Amino acid sequence: MKYRLYAPGPTPVPEDVLTEMAKPILHHRTPAAEKIIEEVREGLKWIFQTKEEVLILAASGTGAMEGSVTNLLSKKDHALVIDGGKFGERWWKILKAHGIEHDVIKVEWGKAVNADLVAQKLQSQDYRAVYMQASETSTGVAHPVKQIADIVKGYPNTALVVDGITAVGVVNLPMDSWGIDILVSGSQKAFQLPPGLAFAALSQKAWGMVEKSDLPKFYFNFKSEKKNILLNTTAYTPAISLVAGLRLVLQNLKKEGLENIFKRHEKMAQAVRSAAVAIGLKLYAPESPSAAVTAIYGPSGIDTGQIVKTLRIDFNMTIANGQDDAKGKIFRIGHLGYYDAMDMITVWSAIEMALTKLGYKFEKGKGVAKMMEILM
Amino acid sequence: MKYRLYAPGPTPVPEDVLTEMAKPILHHRTPAAEKIIEEVREGLKWIFQTKEEVLILAASGTGAMEGSVTNLLSKKDHALVIDGGKFGERWWKILKAHGIEHDVIKVEWGKAVNADLVAQKLQSQDYRAVYMQASETSTGVAHPVKQIADIVKGYPNTALVVDGITAVGVVNLPMDSWGIDILVSGSQKAFQLPPGLAFAALSQKAWGMVEKSDLPKFYFNFKSEKKNILLNTTAYTPAISLVAGLRLVLQNLKKEGLENIFKRHEKMAQAVRSAAVAIGLKLYAPESPSAAVTAIYGPSGIDTGQIVKTLRIDFNMTIANGQDDAKGKIFRIGHLGYYDAMDMITVWSAIEMALTKLGYKFEKGKGVAKMMEILM
Repeated sequence: MKYRLYAPGPTPVPEDVLTEMAKPILHHRTPAAEKIIEEVREGLKWIFQTKEEVLILAASGTGAMEGSVTNLLSKKDHALVIDGGKFGERWWKILKAHGIEHDVIKVEWGKAVNADLVAQKLQSQDYRAVYMQASETSTGVAHPVKQIADIVKGYPNTALVVDGITAVGVVNLPMDSWGIDILVSGSQKAFQLPPGLAFAALSQKAWGMVEKSDLPKFYFNFKSEKKNILLNTTAYTPAISLVAGLRLVLQNLKKEGLENIFKRHEKMAQAVRSAAVAIGLKLYAPESPSAAVTAIYGPSGIDTGQIVKTLRIDFNMTIANGQDDAKGKIFRIGHLGYYDAMDMITVWSAIEMALTKLGYKFEKGKGVAKMMEILM
Repeated sequence: MKYRLYAPGPTPVPEDVLTEMAKPILHHRTPAAEKIIEEVREGLKWIFQTKEEVLILAASGTGAMEGSVTNLLSKKDHALVIDGGKFGERWWKILKAHGIEHDVIKVEWGKAVNADLVAQKLQSQDYRAVYMQASETSTGVAHPVKQIADIVKGYPNTALVVDGITAVGVVNLPMDSWGIDILVSGSQKAFQLPPGLAFAALSQKAWGMVEKSDLPKFYFNFKSEKKNILLNTTAYTPAISLVAGLRLVLQNLKKEGLENIFKRHEKMAQAVRSAAVAIGLKLYAPESPSAAVTAIYGPSGIDTGQIVKTLRIDFNMTIANGQDDAKGKIFRIGHLGYYDAMDMITVWSAIEMALTKLGYKFEKGKGVAKMMEILM
């Protein structure tokens, strides 16, 4: 049976990119490799919507997140974290691991943060950085990045650090014009690649803080990476086969155009949300949904682990369960990266069949019909 | 013109492994991915010659090196570094970045460390760890790991950390029987893969120290990786396409057998060394050469950058120049990974042609003839 992957990352890799990466390996310190990196640099700036360099790290996204702490902050700094899910948690776990004092705005899972709370916190205390997610993958929530960026702009000594791992290349997140100070992402999401590359771009404000940072770091050393990327190389051996794939992905995405990329994702997200509602299911994040992943409550009495398992066994498809407290209660469908609306019809049909098998009563096909309506 | 890569890493990836990695991407939290990791775990233990788990990190080798500092040591520890080249340097640079007090045994480039010096140092001072390379890639030197392991064994509170990045799967380096406490390696060397995976295996002695370590760490957290690898997964998203390639590489290497792998590398190294001497060139590390890479002085009056460049332009081949002070003075030929003796004849013929073009006078074909002698 064909394998179909609908998780919020890793996401499918296009066939032409798979074969591009299957070409014989290049040495990274050669003019040929430097030419690839030069082209990738330009493409990354385009998709990050920034004039700054986008650093390329051989790591998964968490590596870029850790680097956004150890390179930006100093030992005595105080940070603010917006925690509305597993990845929000990760920010304060990283800060804790590095002994950085921090406050946490705990947001109920499935909800977006209230920007007013961020404004209040910033008034009450001198924070060096605010850490947040643009899209919280564990809950399918989009946080109000622009609103928060507008608030943080009022604090010249405070940086806004945004985890855009499931947002860059999915939704409009113009780093420079909104005033995001660090924006990080990862290859296995909208970048349509296997996992193994992480990205980070820093504003001039952030680079100024990097100069003063006294936290220990070595492998994730942004200053040293910046020096190297300007020479079309990296500080340590890059995951060069992924970088070669990235060049092709960025070429393909450029042909599609940023506006179309955002529209494609929004349409898929709308289709999935509407289909869920059409068959009587409840969305987990109805008020501020992410365009990257849709989280849906299972029907009462059905553990969502059973839905995930039925898709795996009957259809050789991967979707995601909830995590932690949401495990068994919600399921998550990824629609970021190399997908289009027809893929959503495929996965949704399988979900309708699985739900039927598991005993949920609804009018079969109604979700799919709703999707068609949206797509036409 | 066919591209040919003879650098000491990255090294060529076998055709079957390239296509294996070009298969559609797997989600890492699925039974299928767990099965791959389970098989890879066994294969890594085999090639590391250890009963311990070998951790799989999404990073280049330097990430595993940094983790071998931040996971093993505590703030007030004192470490000893053997520095005989660029990678020896890297150990103390990592220690310095993390504020760890350390002494350095500086070894002349091209020479192996004298184990007696290590014994003297250990007698004079209480070190928690000794950091060294098995094979120093920048100079083509093999350091006496077994001798040093025998010395360190006498110190129950001192760990021996060996960078085996260009040694594991090249020469016999039996971690358990020699008593190596941390052994690290990387995918783009003898593992015949693109860069992007780093490995680290720890002895029980090292794990005991990890329990007490108080240095900050997050992405490279060995305890957390160990917990995960026992469940056939990793703490953060693994570079799963490389891991899938690794499974096939390990299957292929097992068919070849450890003894044959070591013999193959030794034969290639011997062939290259003899060919160099046969045409009147001087070896950079004649006394204790590494089987992974051979460093050779250029003929007097010829900058080795010219040799590297001529191979690139006339033959589309990559070999390596010297680094730092050795730049321009030596050139390096990698022979670790997916190579056999016939590949060495190819690169050596190109070198003879390049040297002729650059004005070096010698009996053309004499190096190649010497290689044939060794291979027959």
